[in-house]
Amino acid sequence: MRVLILGGDGYLGWPTAMYLSRRGHEIAVLDNFAKRNWEVELGVEPLIPIRTLHERVSAWREVSENEISIYVGDLTDYGFVEATLRDFEPEAIVHYGEQPSAPYSMVDHRHAAYTQQNNVIGNLNVLFAMRDVVPDCHLVKLGTMGEYGTPNIDIEEGWIEIHHNGRTDRMPFPKVPGSFYHLSKVHDSHNIMFACRIWGTRATDLNQGVVYGIHTDETILDGRLVTSFHYDETFGTALNRFCVQAVAGIPLTLYGKGKQTRGFLNIKDTLQCVELALLNQAEKGEFRVFNQFTEQFSVTELAELVQTAAGSLGIEAELAHVDNPRIEKEEHYYNAKHTKLFDLGLQPHLLSNVLVDSMIQTVLEHRYRINPSVIRQGIRWSGKTPEAAHS
Amino acid sequence: MRVLILGGDGYLGWPTAMYLSRRGHEIAVLDNFAKRNWEVELGVEPLIPIRTLHERVSAWREVSENEISIYVGDLTDYGFVEATLRDFEPEAIVHYGEQPSAPYSMVDHRHAAYTQQNNVIGNLNVLFAMRDVVPDCHLVKLGTMGEYGTPNIDIEEGWIEIHHNGRTDRMPFPKVPGSFYHLSKVHDSHNIMFACRIWGTRATDLNQGVVYGIHTDETILDGRLVTSFHYDETFGTALNRFCVQAVAGIPLTLYGKGKQTRGFLNIKDTLQCVELALLNQAEKGEFRVFNQFTEQFSVTELAELVQTAAGSLGIEAELAHVDNPRIEKEEHYYNAKHTKLFDLGLQPHLLSNVLVDSMIQTVLEHRYRINPSVIRQGIRWSGKTPEAAHS
Repeated sequence: MRVLILGGDGYLGWPTAMYLSRRGHEIAVLDNFAKRNWEVELGVEPLIPIRTLHERVSAWREVSENEISIYVGDLTDYGFVEATLRDFEPEAIVHYGEQPSAPYSMVDHRHAAYTQQNNVIGNLNVLFAMRDVVPDCHLVKLGTMGEYGTPNIDIEEGWIEIHHNGRTDRMPFPKVPGSFYHLSKVHDSHNIMFACRIWGTRATDLNQGVVYGIHTDETILDGRLVTSFHYDETFGTALNRFCVQAVAGIPLTLYGKGKQTRGFLNIKDTLQCVELALLNQAEKGEFRVFNQFTEQFSVTELAELVQTAAGSLGIEAELAHVDNPRIEKEEHYYNAKHTKLFDLGLQPHLLSNVLVDSMIQTVLEHRYRINPSVIRQGIRWSGKTPEAAHS
Repeated sequence: MRVLILGGDGYLGWPTAMYLSRRGHEIAVLDNFAKRNWEVELGVEPLIPIRTLHERVSAWREVSENEISIYVGDLTDYGFVEATLRDFEPEAIVHYGEQPSAPYSMVDHRHAAYTQQNNVIGNLNVLFAMRDVVPDCHLVKLGTMGEYGTPNIDIEEGWIEIHHNGRTDRMPFPKVPGSFYHLSKVHDSHNIMFACRIWGTRATDLNQGVVYGIHTDETILDGRLVTSFHYDETFGTALNRFCVQAVAGIPLTLYGKGKQTRGFLNIKDTLQCVELALLNQAEKGEFRVFNQFTEQFSVTELAELVQTAAGSLGIEAELAHVDNPRIEKEEHYYNAKHTKLFDLGLQPHLLSNVLVDSMIQTVLEHRYRINPSVIRQGIRWSGKTPEAAHS
């Protein structure tokens, strides 16, 4: 299958490109390298240095004898998107090409507006270019479980049958997202749903949980193939950050009560889920939603897992409750359905001490690169600095 | 009350400014005159020529002895929004300042992207500037009944109690909007709801029905005070367009089966509803939604009303079913709640033959300005030209 991967230079985009390439698909990656600029802006770096995309593609050619094409440009530039689709004629598009950080979107008005403009307009351009150039192409769009928030009812996979005043309809599951970034994904979902309805676009919205992990079966093949692993407050996800805190001898920071529950998955399962969506494509006009995670944990449970794994390696990790920089429920009901990908054959890599051990060991190898000052960056949902928040 | 009206040069913004000014409020209007450019772009003009905003404000000063301040600039320019709020210090903001046309948003990718970028980012800037400059200010935001679409269940006012698998939550009513314009309003609603939740913003989202009417009690005071009345496919609403078609001797065009049902209201009731929202402000952190319309009609019923009223003036108007340029259900259940504004004291101006008569008479006075070629402009939701749609 000819698959175009938007955001192919990123944490998930690059491993997805290699995974699919290795499994016989013809792959192109598209990126504008914006993420590398956000890193410079915030003064953060991935734990393991990563190569340019061109070097990675060369290394992949050496290792796998497979070619990956590169398209460099911005999704908010319609002409570029259209030209890329005309040139590559993808049968499927995997869309990771968005600003992916909730804290980044909450820095100030400029970062909020940038995130929504970048994500929403980029995605709109993809929808229009698909309509006009490759109307049969399947869009596999990365959304997030954070679109749903933490409702007091079970979370369904995108759609819910509502019974109301004696009548019934199947409706989009109501969303209560928790940041301007999460909101941008909700906006995308609504736009995509509309394109499916009026143009017959095929789309799968993958509402993904929090991804953890450093390595995939492809990144370990050659040192030049590693992916961008972040541990800073802005781009690092919970488990990844906890492993680095443990190694750096910093307490693992729990926001507020630490009872926030979320869905999590291994980076290897992201790749597997994306391929399952590609191989079982949505129908013409279908807007299909999969909740993409394998296990639910509270943040405290997650931190304790890391604490135990660190302990088995002789590292004593402490937990610390800090003022929650976010505004969110710290104790809540959470039961999110996630059977559709399992029905398609997902074989999950569940979180076990063994895996956390190996992650901590990888972090240990690169501990000289840890910059503890970026682990907390003081971005607060209230817009107030930590000092002002206490005054 | 000090009220800032965003989009104060528009069809509803300008009459709202005069109405509130006359009732003793201190009014400022903000506009970037983008609408006047869209008119030039499409080659359309309001039925009755309108003055510059500065001339209208001068005329209003003569007529009423009241001052209205003018701020000229763009809501997508954060610095301008912040400076305006610092200067005027509004106690309430009435936000009409968006691209308001569904067909305009469906012209092509550029118009879709422009609509969403303009509306969503402008509204985001208002939310941030309110937070930082006038945190106690009340946002009265114009949304649309079109955010809901036509679900098979009763439409509630913004929120619905959902019972699911033995549990219950009060959730945002799920939205299935019908154009990229309507989607932009859904995106706005989600962003505002979030600001209320995390910053304690006060907001009222007025999900307004289709507005009809030419005159208000203020526009008739002086010929220089008329508002921008459109009858073209892009900016004209159903009833307004039907009156002009009747006068021009063109059949009243029903899209498809013509059984689409919507909520409608008189322009005078828009002003009344906005004032009711202002006088009964939302609580700190409250995201309040009012469905703002007074009566439900099918498009055919509406056309027949115009036909009858035209007949009583000796004008024989025909109805014609045309290929639906939109993609929407042409027969559907529709029962939208709209009690909250009535509970606050709304005294509706219901649609009667008398009113339609007087509208047609006003159109007759200006019939020499009707340009029949703009009544259908061939904008199709499918993206195909009418010819291609048949091939």
